[in-house]
Amino acid sequence: MTEIKINDLNQVFNHQNVLKNINLEFKNKAIYGLLGNNGVGKSTLMNLMTERILPTSGYISINGHNIHNNDVALQQMYLLNEDDMYSPSLKVRQIFNLTNEIYGNFNFKFAKLLSKKFDLNLSLKFGKLSTGYRTICKIIVAFCVPVKYVLLDEPTLGLDANHRNLFYEALINTYSHNPRTFIISSHLINEISKLLNYVIFINNGKIILNNSIEIIMKNSFAITGSKDDVKQYTRNLNVIGKRNLGKLSTFYVYDHINNQTKSFNIKIEKMNLQRLLICLSNIGKEG
Amino acid sequence: MTEIKINDLNQVFNHQNVLKNINLEFKNKAIYGLLGNNGVGKSTLMNLMTERILPTSGYISINGHNIHNNDVALQQMYLLNEDDMYSPSLKVRQIFNLTNEIYGNFNFKFAKLLSKKFDLNLSLKFGKLSTGYRTICKIIVAFCVPVKYVLLDEPTLGLDANHRNLFYEALINTYSHNPRTFIISSHLINEISKLLNYVIFINNGKIILNNSIEIIMKNSFAITGSKDDVKQYTRNLNVIGKRNLGKLSTFYVYDHINNQTKSFNIKIEKMNLQRLLICLSNIGKEG
Repeated sequence: MTEIKINDLNQVFNHQNVLKNINLEFKNKAIYGLLGNNGVGKSTLMNLMTERILPTSGYISINGHNIHNNDVALQQMYLLNEDDMYSPSLKVRQIFNLTNEIYGNFNFKFAKLLSKKFDLNLSLKFGKLSTGYRTICKIIVAFCVPVKYVLLDEPTLGLDANHRNLFYEALINTYSHNPRTFIISSHLINEISKLLNYVIFINNGKIILNNSIEIIMKNSFAITGSKDDVKQYTRNLNVIGKRNLGKLSTFYVYDHINNQTKSFNIKIEKMNLQRLLICLSNIGKEG
Repeated sequence: MTEIKINDLNQVFNHQNVLKNINLEFKNKAIYGLLGNNGVGKSTLMNLMTERILPTSGYISINGHNIHNNDVALQQMYLLNEDDMYSPSLKVRQIFNLTNEIYGNFNFKFAKLLSKKFDLNLSLKFGKLSTGYRTICKIIVAFCVPVKYVLLDEPTLGLDANHRNLFYEALINTYSHNPRTFIISSHLINEISKLLNYVIFINNGKIILNNSIEIIMKNSFAITGSKDDVKQYTRNLNVIGKRNLGKLSTFYVYDHINNQTKSFNIKIEKMNLQRLLICLSNIGKEG
């Protein structure tokens, strides 16, 4: 079931086409990775989807209703990003209460459990929290607010490994108790990849890849051997990157392959999502 | 050969003992990971080692000479951290020239190569760079300045996967051409672990782990099976963490083990460095 639909969306800033004719659908109750390098338009897209900014052209709908000036639709979305929307003088506890007043049905029980796990003091003022703990406070709000669409723009930026681990565990926990749509951007692609159902990869304002993680992973390979063997084996395949180490070459392939390697002295391994996206973002560049 | 030695170092901020009686040695020409959660004292230690701040007690020496007020010693160190030391009106090219004037023998050739790889425009003013590109500019300076000790405090913060990949490649490149000591703090433990010779893990201001990565990895295991089997197999081992998934239990072990599993229906796998450090940082906490 398609819930959010993005139609022919364009966004121009300072004469630059940041998003180019984007068409996308987000299914209900799935976890999406919205991935791409810095500056490709991910944050812009999330700001457009929650109408924090308005598109140059095109529109976004939820269940067929345009979100523009549509409070009912916008009330179903929550965006966490680097903006701090809370007054620095508000205590964490007051932020939870305020969110409850705005959205209703705030999950105080889960918020308290998470605050304990993350070691977040509910009596501290938002302005007194470290950068990491401000993010943690915003993560807890995002997980406890009763919306159908949770957009998380770089939710782990600046978090240490222990806190990231808690974040991933909390996401699995809240999603399994209350399946809803999560749209997550992150530069920690290999870590987040384990949680995703779908991957949307943006490069230079365009959608380069949009598929389920299973299908993507089924087509992602690293082929290693002598350069001649690897070249020969991959001659009809979609080679998206190459690396040489001494006499060995590794060709990265995004394609359907069969494992008939008998006549070649090569090793076929899975390529992880991070390597795939690095290769895709470098296609067309030299070196 | 020990080059940097830290002797009985203590640091107190606001009546809090941030670093507690630290004793450490850094060998010449090795790559160290200085790892730990946010707020454990890693940045403080790096600031002390480059005398940007002074210790409450204890001292640091290079080749037996105290670094205090010792310009010859301090000239051999370079620290990259989140502080921006350059005037926003300086162009990248001017920053390279300025570094050459201060330290001499700046590697302009490598700086130009890296700028091209990272797509950093030498004519842009530092103040006009995005956060990511400011970091990239500082990384290039750190790799091209002719010092014996390069300290990198969170050099990949905010970099996307593609730029992090270029950073790791550049580090391998510069280290292999000119082996020198790198001391690197990072929250992306699994990514950085492939580059490290030694790991120093700090928790609550104390050194918890200090060893070569080979030895650490040789002792890091995840044991999975039924709870009874896993409990029985690990009864005399150093269990540092546990996880349950349905009927299966995984116990994380930091110990020497032999692989005699015949009488147990268990699976023994390697535990990665990130999981090890998460476990070590949570010892003593409930849950």
